[in-house]
Amino acid sequence: MRKIINDPVHGFITIDDPMIFKIIAHPYYQRLRRIKQMALAYLVYPGAVHTRLHHSLGAYHLMHLALQELKQKGIDMSPEEEQASKVAILLHDIGHGPFSHALEHTLVDVHHEHLSLRIMQKLNDEFEGKLDMALSIFQDQYPKKFLHQLVSSQLDVDRLDYLARDSFFTGVSEGVIGYDRIIKMLTVSGNELAVEEKGIYSIEKFLIARRLMYWQVYLHKTVLSSELMLVNILKRAKALAQSGETLFATPALSWFLQRDIPSDQFDLDPNNLDQFLLLDDNDVVASVKVWASHPDPILSDLCRRLNERRLFKVHYTAVEENIDLDAIKKKLCTHFNLAEADLPYYFTQDSASNMAYSAGDEKIKIAYKNGRIREISEIEDTLISAGLLVPVKKHYICYPAI
Amino acid sequence: MRKIINDPVHGFITIDDPMIFKIIAHPYYQRLRRIKQMALAYLVYPGAVHTRLHHSLGAYHLMHLALQELKQKGIDMSPEEEQASKVAILLHDIGHGPFSHALEHTLVDVHHEHLSLRIMQKLNDEFEGKLDMALSIFQDQYPKKFLHQLVSSQLDVDRLDYLARDSFFTGVSEGVIGYDRIIKMLTVSGNELAVEEKGIYSIEKFLIARRLMYWQVYLHKTVLSSELMLVNILKRAKALAQSGETLFATPALSWFLQRDIPSDQFDLDPNNLDQFLLLDDNDVVASVKVWASHPDPILSDLCRRLNERRLFKVHYTAVEENIDLDAIKKKLCTHFNLAEADLPYYFTQDSASNMAYSAGDEKIKIAYKNGRIREISEIEDTLISAGLLVPVKKHYICYPAI
Amino acid sequence: MRKIINDPVHGFITIDDPMIFKIIAHPYYQRLRRIKQMALAYLVYPGAVHTRLHHSLGAYHLMHLALQELKQKGIDMSPEEEQASKVAILLHDIGHGPFSHALEHTLVDVHHEHLSLRIMQKLNDEFEGKLDMALSIFQDQYPKKFLHQLVSSQLDVDRLDYLARDSFFTGVSEGVIGYDRIIKMLTVSGNELAVEEKGIYSIEKFLIARRLMYWQVYLHKTVLSSELMLVNILKRAKALAQSGETLFATPALSWFLQRDIPSDQFDLDPNNLDQFLLLDDNDVVASVKVWASHPDPILSDLCRRLNERRLFKVHYTAVEENIDLDAIKKKLCTHFNLAEADLPYYFTQDSASNMAYSAGDEKIKIAYKNGRIREISEIEDTLISAGLLVPVKKHYICYPAI
Amino acid sequence: MRKIINDPVHGFITIDDPMIFKIIAHPYYQRLRRIKQMALAYLVYPGAVHTRLHHSLGAYHLMHLALQELKQKGIDMSPEEEQASKVAILLHDIGHGPFSHALEHTLVDVHHEHLSLRIMQKLNDEFEGKLDMALSIFQDQYPKKFLHQLVSSQLDVDRLDYLARDSFFTGVSEGVIGYDRIIKMLTVSGNELAVEEKGIYSIEKFLIARRLMYWQVYLHKTVLSSELMLVNILKRAKALAQSGETLFATPALSWFLQRDIPSDQFDLDPNNLDQFLLLDDNDVVASVKVWASHPDPILSDLCRRLNERRLFKVHYTAVEENIDLDAIKKKLCTHFNLAEADLPYYFTQDSASNMAYSAGDEKIKIAYKNGRIREISEIEDTLISAGLLVPVKKHYICYPAI
Repeated sequence: MRKIINDPVHGFITIDDPMIFKIIAHPYYQRLRRIKQMALAYLVYPGAVHTRLHHSLGAYHLMHLALQELKQKGIDMSPEEEQASKVAILLHDIGHGPFSHALEHTLVDVHHEHLSLRIMQKLNDEFEGKLDMALSIFQDQYPKKFLHQLVSSQLDVDRLDYLARDSFFTGVSEGVIGYDRIIKMLTVSGNELAVEEKGIYSIEKFLIARRLMYWQVYLHKTVLSSELMLVNILKRAKALAQSGETLFATPALSWFLQRDIPSDQFDLDPNNLDQFLLLDDNDVVASVKVWASHPDPILSDLCRRLNERRLFKVHYTAVEENIDLDAIKKKLCTHFNLAEADLPYYFTQDSASNMAYSAGDEKIKIAYKNGRIREISEIEDTLISAGLLVPVKKHYICYPAI
Repeated sequence: MRKIINDPVHGFITIDDPMIFKIIAHPYYQRLRRIKQMALAYLVYPGAVHTRLHHSLGAYHLMHLALQELKQKGIDMSPEEEQASKVAILLHDIGHGPFSHALEHTLVDVHHEHLSLRIMQKLNDEFEGKLDMALSIFQDQYPKKFLHQLVSSQLDVDRLDYLARDSFFTGVSEGVIGYDRIIKMLTVSGNELAVEEKGIYSIEKFLIARRLMYWQVYLHKTVLSSELMLVNILKRAKALAQSGETLFATPALSWFLQRDIPSDQFDLDPNNLDQFLLLDDNDVVASVKVWASHPDPILSDLCRRLNERRLFKVHYTAVEENIDLDAIKKKLCTHFNLAEADLPYYFTQDSASNMAYSAGDEKIKIAYKNGRIREISEIEDTLISAGLLVPVKKHYICYPAI
Repeated sequence: MRKIINDPVHGFITIDDPMIFKIIAHPYYQRLRRIKQMALAYLVYPGAVHTRLHHSLGAYHLMHLALQELKQKGIDMSPEEEQASKVAILLHDIGHGPFSHALEHTLVDVHHEHLSLRIMQKLNDEFEGKLDMALSIFQDQYPKKFLHQLVSSQLDVDRLDYLARDSFFTGVSEGVIGYDRIIKMLTVSGNELAVEEKGIYSIEKFLIARRLMYWQVYLHKTVLSSELMLVNILKRAKALAQSGETLFATPALSWFLQRDIPSDQFDLDPNNLDQFLLLDDNDVVASVKVWASHPDPILSDLCRRLNERRLFKVHYTAVEENIDLDAIKKKLCTHFNLAEADLPYYFTQDSASNMAYSAGDEKIKIAYKNGRIREISEIEDTLISAGLLVPVKKHYICYPAI
Repeated sequence: MRKIINDPVHGFITIDDPMIFKIIAHPYYQRLRRIKQMALAYLVYPGAVHTRLHHSLGAYHLMHLALQELKQKGIDMSPEEEQASKVAILLHDIGHGPFSHALEHTLVDVHHEHLSLRIMQKLNDEFEGKLDMALSIFQDQYPKKFLHQLVSSQLDVDRLDYLARDSFFTGVSEGVIGYDRIIKMLTVSGNELAVEEKGIYSIEKFLIARRLMYWQVYLHKTVLSSELMLVNILKRAKALAQSGETLFATPALSWFLQRDIPSDQFDLDPNNLDQFLLLDDNDVVASVKVWASHPDPILSDLCRRLNERRLFKVHYTAVEENIDLDAIKKKLCTHFNLAEADLPYYFTQDSASNMAYSAGDEKIKIAYKNGRIREISEIEDTLISAGLLVPVKKHYICYPAI
């Protein structure tokens, strides 16, 4: 049995393992079809509507290529390890909810990686322990550390796929990375993933492309603004729901609107995870649309604005000098007839930051022909040491133009 | 004022007309962001999640290119005519609802072109008559017939964009057409659109690509099956709603579930159009998800299957001989414990057909250097005369594997 | 030992067999670097300067993919057969000389396939018989006929590569074919190559793309004209050389200018092949450039025209009626002060023809799921039966605009 | 009159100015068809056989786009200035000879920019002064300095085209730059070219891509080695020619082999330029091929090696420690039976260096919305200040593996 899936990014993705089939066919995995990879970024980049399912299939494909490459270079690997690595990458994002970033700050206060782990464990029960090794790799408990690093590190197939995919679907051609060349340059040294010396410039380019994607796409002012607006909508809806107001919502969304679940208590009630697994983009978007005619003026105004793409503006405070915050706030309160306590629905002050390469996390290692291994940020002549270790942080305020 | 939109298919789309801006910003147009161009085709082609908004922006871009080309060839055109043609193409699909094909057979029994016209008229009222010329072009009432043909004919920018876009997002590279070359070959002869002689092979290729996309994508067996399932779901939900069963739905979806609106009476109640303009994919998908736990066994089973992608199979009856229909039906009734009247929810017999080129519709004309004009199907040496005039029709049956 | 070659068409080409290495490193093979795949087509398509070496590496790559695919489908194949098939495709064009088409009509009156065979035999001697199986496959003497068909048939990897490559380098995007999908659809039935049923539309598209490339590129009027001019130049140079005129030329080119070698006597003198193996595009182009200042007015005029791209015009005689051939010829003789015997240097009457699919040659077979095999031109609903079996022939005359 | 040229890199290039036509049709320009843009790089990247003509047409196309963009932003520009800028970019590389880098060190000791200027002046005489403004722009004497900067600066359309084109034809996808976005971001501030603020990350990416192309392609070890070998071949041939040895060569190549022309005397004899204008890749390659059987053992050995791609190896001396240069040299002399004076034909010690951005040259300026202009290397948060100002220099030795 062998199935071929058309992927505009990678060409054809082949699936030929009954176990992988079963995972892909599982309702938990199919749910990812209904969650956009880039949340609200499609309000700026209309093509960016690809799904988390599509990304995880792509990452699975790159994992396959990477493992073939390593095997050809003589790295020892059993069929079970191959399968487990593929399962781990397929499921690495299974814990994402709709508009993950917004959701995590409002309704489901649990990190998506924790949820991925919990769902993988739940699946493992169903699959009678057959995901044990995948879980071990995912949690970095497996001796062959490079398998974990392929799933999660600063040079994992997750990043290789999402950068390639996001630049493809947004049309930001500058985010294009040479993922095929990087994969050809992968090797293993002492159980850890490394890149052959002649791949240094490709890595540089990959880190710069990622940096560009952050500022041009993921942290684009309009994307930031729309996500903030969704956060405010969900906060308001939750407040109304908990104060006893009638509020349209799907049952799963209602579940999270009507109760506060502290993150450390999420796992105590199995209903929480079950309801989470029923949530996707459609629950949120359909409800926001209905809320646009809710009697609460704040909720309905915010929802109409988001639906109709009349978004708040983001202003970087470092660039525009002499901003009179108090005057702005006052004007907003007057214009929208807001109580001071409700101002945060219309005004946010925060910062966005990104770091091209972190010397603290899973580091990228370069393998020289003579056997020497060096961390990339230690190599002279590369940009990493010089310019990429400092995080870039941009302070901003966000509110509607009035 | 000038705005640039990234489009992975065409590069950058430029918008620099305040009137076009206003139309794009209108909630009716923004609604198209929430309607997938290819309905359920993403169940086969995971990348095919692009929206009707994206397609209509792309068609607008090609209209711009085509008009520039014609102007450079000396075809007379006023700025108003340019703007009106762009407005007409921007709005040509404004009447599409979610999963249009399925919807038209169940809840909203009105053709989407009729709805497009009605919505354009509604917008024209709001814009105080400024869409008059666009409406005239759209309805083929404008003297310069070629402007209408660019909007709607067998070689319109609508088709050029959707073939290019659908093959891009599905990854079916064989659907790629040389739209840029075709546009360079466009000309006008006696008020009608024509293609220069040396573009004949490009037109052939375009028609063949379209034919391939039909059978490989739009009428793909699995796509057919999932659309049939959605039709059956909506029929069942409507039957239940009208028999008084409680049924989760967004208000807009409820409106159409709870009443039968004959197509000739749709326009009588303005609420019909207003509710239609609130409908999009999210209403349908969110409801189908909730219905998966509805007490009605047929509704919940069909919904669970669609959600989890456990789809019916389509079998072409011409290929598989000796099919015993009665036996299949009987088996289905037994297996699903179905009353005979409910069998159609699980068994469909129908046909799919497609015609690469229709000699009856707006024909494609070829302009020779010596001034002669010929219809493409009359030219010897081309494939059109020979092979493309006959519709291909495939009979099939569709039901779950049991 | 493993080498990766960047190919803009296919990505990375991997070579990992010492035998294949040796063949690629051989001077006979390296010679193909200096022969353009598309001869003079770069005078119309400036990007079309890719080499025969590049094409044969690409075909080798597709052979590798096709063999992997067949193996995965359970087709039995030994490592020796794999290697031999790859060697056969690598060397299938080794017998091409510079501007092959022009050369075959003037200096080297032997078909390139015959020369390929002779050179392969010569290499086989050097490699001490290790090319025996490759030779057997190349000559269609090997029992597993599908291996030969992959090298040479109406659906061989040669065509798949050259169509993909030529459309890539010319920028004629309409020539793009879905070679990756076609390869995925290949299978073997009774020792012969076949295409799975669901690949029918891809094959149609491939044949149409080929047809388009013929008329838009390979037989483009300007390409035809420049090749005719080179034929005339070489004929004139040969006439001058054999009449004792001094004529600049590289030693290898001199060899062929100074003697007439009937095709059936080419093999008698081993020097013929040795000199042939020293010839490439540079000998011809460098000499044509020097000949541009030769005292013979016909030779120098033709050479200057070709160098400076002042080409003859091709007129299709079916389109332009009432052409007075005698008047044209007379005008040419007067204008160029030509003896009647020399008129053919300035005036050609001939025809170009192409057939999309030939029912006579190695046919394309379709394999149905139920095991049935049908030749593609016998299948109703396909275009092949209807339109593609008739050769298209275009009569033309070619001469300078005066 | 309007001509469309297919360019696989940019799509269609349109030419619609009779003056531009005449320049392109001129033999001096057509000569660029016979000179490869990337010299011997095709020995590593088989696709890199595109020509200088193709590049300069591409740069002309980007100039056209850039000028349209600036005009749309309200920058004042006359039709004459547009035409002159296009002429200047079309001819900016007209002074390149075959294998320019190698040639400049051996036969024609004049910088190609000087030759471009001389040839433009020669053409200007022929065109009766119509190139005056183009010459003025080329020489940076024209008041609107940004026109010169588009032709020649650190962000000129020359670089935008060659990076895009070279990465396209080599298949090094990592060299891909977002030239279309950069062009959209161009503006003019006080007569000088600048980039809008939001283009900063695109510029970073462009500089990094250029850096990658240098080390991965232009200064690739094997490319370096083959160019050194060609230098040595030409030096040896010149020495033999001047010592009275018989040596095959085209007349133009002979001209330069037989005399030493000090760079400051090149212009004194007009024959020098006339002969130079007859030289192209074919003269060199055809001669090298003939020299492979020359009686001189050094010349013939070097030529055979280059023809058959048996190249010297380059070793970076910083990486490989403890290299015993004397031992190597001694071994080479013994093995090849070399007099010490002839050792340089087989052994080179040199360095390659590249600088991503030079703060000294025509700087890249960033234009902020508030009107402020800053040089890019002065902007905090960019990589340019930090890492790109330092040249990277790699010392190497080059000799045959023995």
